[in-house]
Amino acid sequence: MSYFSFKIIHQSKKSKARVGQIITPHGIIDTPNFVAVGTNGTLKALDNQMLESMEQQLMFCNTYHLLLHPGPDVVKAAGGLHKFINRNQPIITDSGGFQVFSLAYGTVKDELKSKGTKSQQNSVCKIKEEGVTFRSYRDGAKIILTPETSILAQKDLGADIIIPFDELPPYHIDEKQLKKSLDRTHRWEKRSLDEHLKNPNNQAIYAVIHGGINKDFRSLSCKTLTALPFDGFAIGGSVGKNHNEMIDMLGYTIPQLPYEKPNHLLGIGDLPAIEEIVPLGIDTFDSSHPTKCARHGHLFSSQGTVKITHGKHKLNFGPIDPQCTCYTCKNYTTSYVHHLFKAHEPIADTLATIHNVAFMVKLMKQYRQDILDDKI
Amino acid sequence: MSYFSFKIIHQSKKSKARVGQIITPHGIIDTPNFVAVGTNGTLKALDNQMLESMEQQLMFCNTYHLLLHPGPDVVKAAGGLHKFINRNQPIITDSGGFQVFSLAYGTVKDELKSKGTKSQQNSVCKIKEEGVTFRSYRDGAKIILTPETSILAQKDLGADIIIPFDELPPYHIDEKQLKKSLDRTHRWEKRSLDEHLKNPNNQAIYAVIHGGINKDFRSLSCKTLTALPFDGFAIGGSVGKNHNEMIDMLGYTIPQLPYEKPNHLLGIGDLPAIEEIVPLGIDTFDSSHPTKCARHGHLFSSQGTVKITHGKHKLNFGPIDPQCTCYTCKNYTTSYVHHLFKAHEPIADTLATIHNVAFMVKLMKQYRQDILDDKI
Repeated sequence: MSYFSFKIIHQSKKSKARVGQIITPHGIIDTPNFVAVGTNGTLKALDNQMLESMEQQLMFCNTYHLLLHPGPDVVKAAGGLHKFINRNQPIITDSGGFQVFSLAYGTVKDELKSKGTKSQQNSVCKIKEEGVTFRSYRDGAKIILTPETSILAQKDLGADIIIPFDELPPYHIDEKQLKKSLDRTHRWEKRSLDEHLKNPNNQAIYAVIHGGINKDFRSLSCKTLTALPFDGFAIGGSVGKNHNEMIDMLGYTIPQLPYEKPNHLLGIGDLPAIEEIVPLGIDTFDSSHPTKCARHGHLFSSQGTVKITHGKHKLNFGPIDPQCTCYTCKNYTTSYVHHLFKAHEPIADTLATIHNVAFMVKLMKQYRQDILDDKI
Repeated sequence: MSYFSFKIIHQSKKSKARVGQIITPHGIIDTPNFVAVGTNGTLKALDNQMLESMEQQLMFCNTYHLLLHPGPDVVKAAGGLHKFINRNQPIITDSGGFQVFSLAYGTVKDELKSKGTKSQQNSVCKIKEEGVTFRSYRDGAKIILTPETSILAQKDLGADIIIPFDELPPYHIDEKQLKKSLDRTHRWEKRSLDEHLKNPNNQAIYAVIHGGINKDFRSLSCKTLTALPFDGFAIGGSVGKNHNEMIDMLGYTIPQLPYEKPNHLLGIGDLPAIEEIVPLGIDTFDSSHPTKCARHGHLFSSQGTVKITHGKHKLNFGPIDPQCTCYTCKNYTTSYVHHLFKAHEPIADTLATIHNVAFMVKLMKQYRQDILDDKI
């Protein structure tokens, strides 16, 4: 498959970390790498031309949101997602499953907080073997998402990497229910792959490994899905309710994935987590954490997080991070960005987002260099 | 005064319109021209580097807001407003009076709507001969604004053009009260000028002509203030409750200003008004109308206003305005901008603001050309 390949450039002597390159029709993704989340076809508060100047190599868009607006038909008519949003670098889309099941079970965070007391049945969303029926939050329209419709939507979107339709079971689920969900997800992923292979469309497809916090189920999921010709493997579902559970589960799961294929960790990317998942051999991971932090005024820096609204920054006429060369740090002082946040100026979010994304790009470059140097 | 001058390049043979150049320490302002409003030291949703690339020659910042945050001391410590906000083009600041009196009387719009029933006394703000006492909406702190403190604050800010402290009396005011306010404003403006002349600081100062909708008072204000060595003359206060009243009053007032000095119309700049005020000989005018329209999804275009959220734009893969070469039109389709608005993406406001400001820059260029050609 010439339109998609992965090569490992260096395997660290010190850990499972590796430096690689994923080659897609819209360019190269150096790994390990952070994937920025641009739900509706844009990062929050940042336009795609600015983003493209920043070497943020992979962008994650959400099929669920794009399905509700503007609709895959509009994106297809525009010539695909890259043309629609004017991005000439790689894009990955998910299946829509994650958001649909968040409707049913609540967000991952809420569900974890509920300690299992939250009802797992919900009239907003009905799950059958065929797929899921839910109502649009925009106009109440009934939408049926199945492995086939999700893949067809992702064909219309035309991202470089797509994801099969899967169920995201809640953390608080009994073993029997989890197994039922896992088996169905495996059937859904197989159907997704079959649909994809009818028209590969120069797209790669990553399976999603499930099994929740049950190691036997995770092994079963790896075994089942790696037997199929997926181009890469994402790790999804609940990998634990805290940091330690997550690291333990990832350390257990990753070695069961084919070494020569790229892997992806879904939805995790805070700074402490990155430090631990890179040595485990994670190639890419997506997270809205850096952009969300930016909008909350938490700016990443080589000297730790800068809480920009803090009064101590009022007279700081230096850049947010002395080691940063981003557009924001090049053009504006900490004092001015502090002022924009305090005055609730919307451009504050943009400048903060540019800064945090630039920080992530630089951070990941440093991680790759450290792996090349066998320091990690 | 080498730091500030005005030259008339062409007087239209057809109307009072003229093309000129105001020369300031931070560059030239071609007139007639639109002045963009950047209340807190930034246009809403647009950063100053982007703005600076757009040939928007003059920016209007509000002393009242900058007084409350970050405070003139911070701006002074940064090296002045230009350095603080990183703008290397001309800036004008107002005196703070307008906002303070909006606290007392309500906004111009609200006051007009009230038809005079709104109380004109208010505990938020107390007016004496010395100046005005009000409380910060940020932290409740008591602030005294006088001609002297307003000018000293504007010295700290260091804009190219500053404005004396004046009272903005409400539209619904009886003649006796209006005369009392006018006389006091004239005393305040004289005190402002005196304070300014102690330390001109390479700044120019424009008087503000008052007199409400009373022509005799307008004449008196012109006579009183043009006798003083102001660098230019702004027209402020209520110039009428509707379009016709405004045009009538401006047509009456402008000929009473010195022909060889620049004039400015405060706070008016909707497209129909511009068409009528330019032939009257207005040199500059500030308005938040174009940027507000942008954020409400009303995009200016050579074919009329585009209401971007309208469903008909869903599949429009052309630019917002076929004749526009702005960053937004160059990079994104109408369909995509429509999508960003519908998805409530904050970057929609930025792209729309860029477009409307670029439209204003181009529009004013065209007005100047039409005057040079004696078409206006």
